[in-house]
Amino acid sequence: MKALRFVDNQLKLAEIAKPENEREALIRVTKSGICNTDLEIVRGYAGFSGTIGHEFVGVVEKAGDKNWIGKRVVGEINAGCGACEKCRAGDARHCPNRTVLGIHGRDGAHAEFLTLPLDNLLEVPADVPDEEAVFIEPLAAAFGITEQVAIDEDTRVAVVGDGKLGILCAFALSLKSKNTVLIGKHREKLNLAGKRNIEGILLADAAKLNGAFDVAVEASGSESGFATALDLLKPRGKMVLKSTFQGKTNLEMWRVVVDEITITGSRCGRFAPALELLEKRLVTLDDLISDEFTLSEGVRAMTRAAEKGVMKVLLSMTK
Amino acid sequence: MKALRFVDNQLKLAEIAKPENEREALIRVTKSGICNTDLEIVRGYAGFSGTIGHEFVGVVEKAGDKNWIGKRVVGEINAGCGACEKCRAGDARHCPNRTVLGIHGRDGAHAEFLTLPLDNLLEVPADVPDEEAVFIEPLAAAFGITEQVAIDEDTRVAVVGDGKLGILCAFALSLKSKNTVLIGKHREKLNLAGKRNIEGILLADAAKLNGAFDVAVEASGSESGFATALDLLKPRGKMVLKSTFQGKTNLEMWRVVVDEITITGSRCGRFAPALELLEKRLVTLDDLISDEFTLSEGVRAMTRAAEKGVMKVLLSMTK
Repeated sequence: MKALRFVDNQLKLAEIAKPENEREALIRVTKSGICNTDLEIVRGYAGFSGTIGHEFVGVVEKAGDKNWIGKRVVGEINAGCGACEKCRAGDARHCPNRTVLGIHGRDGAHAEFLTLPLDNLLEVPADVPDEEAVFIEPLAAAFGITEQVAIDEDTRVAVVGDGKLGILCAFALSLKSKNTVLIGKHREKLNLAGKRNIEGILLADAAKLNGAFDVAVEASGSESGFATALDLLKPRGKMVLKSTFQGKTNLEMWRVVVDEITITGSRCGRFAPALELLEKRLVTLDDLISDEFTLSEGVRAMTRAAEKGVMKVLLSMTK
Repeated sequence: MKALRFVDNQLKLAEIAKPENEREALIRVTKSGICNTDLEIVRGYAGFSGTIGHEFVGVVEKAGDKNWIGKRVVGEINAGCGACEKCRAGDARHCPNRTVLGIHGRDGAHAEFLTLPLDNLLEVPADVPDEEAVFIEPLAAAFGITEQVAIDEDTRVAVVGDGKLGILCAFALSLKSKNTVLIGKHREKLNLAGKRNIEGILLADAAKLNGAFDVAVEASGSESGFATALDLLKPRGKMVLKSTFQGKTNLEMWRVVVDEITITGSRCGRFAPALELLEKRLVTLDDLISDEFTLSEGVRAMTRAAEKGVMKVLLSMTK
């Protein structure tokens, strides 16, 4: 089968054997999405080697439980060991021995096939198209914030960073609080928020809102974004850290102490609530797709995804 | 009156006018304690100029409400504007226009007299000696953690840093959880914890406990302490940041995201619960005092307080 692989510090389309794993389901991938993490892996982050990609929708081709065969599915990307304290508590996402699809110890989704434990799979409701289902992982990561930090209709929320992640966070959090704003550098991206009645504010104009927010989500991936989020928060406010900065970051942590800020690191979210948002049409995502390529064009698709201003780039395995 | 002042980047004992403020109580200071913040102010931190010191016990000499006169008191160090949202909600500690005793915009406690609003004062119970009452501010700051982070008898708590602040945090948190350990570099300081049945662990031996704690309190004031606290935490664990690092700090914030750690900045605590701990003899502090000087010896006392291994240094205004 074809797979987009990062091996020996090189990204290339390779022909490899179809995966086999008796204990897991075999899934024929329909579409996959290119995430910033994929781009970072190709820059050497995480030391991953193998097939990249972790955002996908596909169809089950083989499974221990025959009922799953033929079902259209998405899949949680963390596979736990099943034995540790976290796994036994149902939290494979934090298992210290976990593998992570296309990120850590497990071949990923930019391929014709992948395998995952059945427990990781969720069936996609019939009326959610592939183009939306493929967003489930980042949407779950965005909506997962609401399970970590209390947000109600009165909470003033600022999302800093108008990239893919920031926009999804603003969409998801605006479902909890209409007092959600998106702050970024790109008028055309802020307009995507505006179309959903979420106020978009240019970074250059954000200083007038300093000290006004209960919650600030740092989704820009930059040190300056961290400082901006701190500026925006009230004392005792809550910062949510979504971006995985590479290496060490230079931060004014004394301000966190003086203003008694709480910072919550937020990586993944549960898929089920996010799938419900799509099923109920509470979130629309069609205008977030910049481009779609075939799997064979995978290397070119990665280059395109890395271009400035580009939103989601998809790979299609059926074309 | 005599006062220990930091003016024009110089620390000196000065003779200045007794403070007068019709709207505040005049307090004759009995004892004051030298805090690391005092030492940092003298190094230029916070840009403060004036009489330093914020840990004190004293006797009210003048007050609008005559009932207070002659009472032995301690005082909350933050004085709010009284008009802003935070002040109206009873939280002067986070008023953006607040002054802070001996730290920001207000002369401090290493002096014969100070003034504070009556609302800031608490009477000291008769059976709490001055030597203990003078610890109320740092003890409140330590015990205040329990109002920010849930700690019960099963919570595994690590305090990183065996300086004055770390030791007080370990004392305070061990009242909530017997699973509290103190981690530091100094065997003799760890022994102070051991005397209270709190396990003291040398930093060199701490790595074997990595991933074992629900809560880690960073009280070492060093970047490496932040990394140690991160190492000790379970995924989704809670870090409490007590130290005000100067300037920017170089931190591996991506680990906070991947392990979904929550970091809570913690500066001050309420005095009333801490005073109750002293009144009920739940915390003993006598062996934390390294030295006591007269106010006239204030400059020398500050030098002494800055020496390695020295715990609390007090100033006495009655000797």
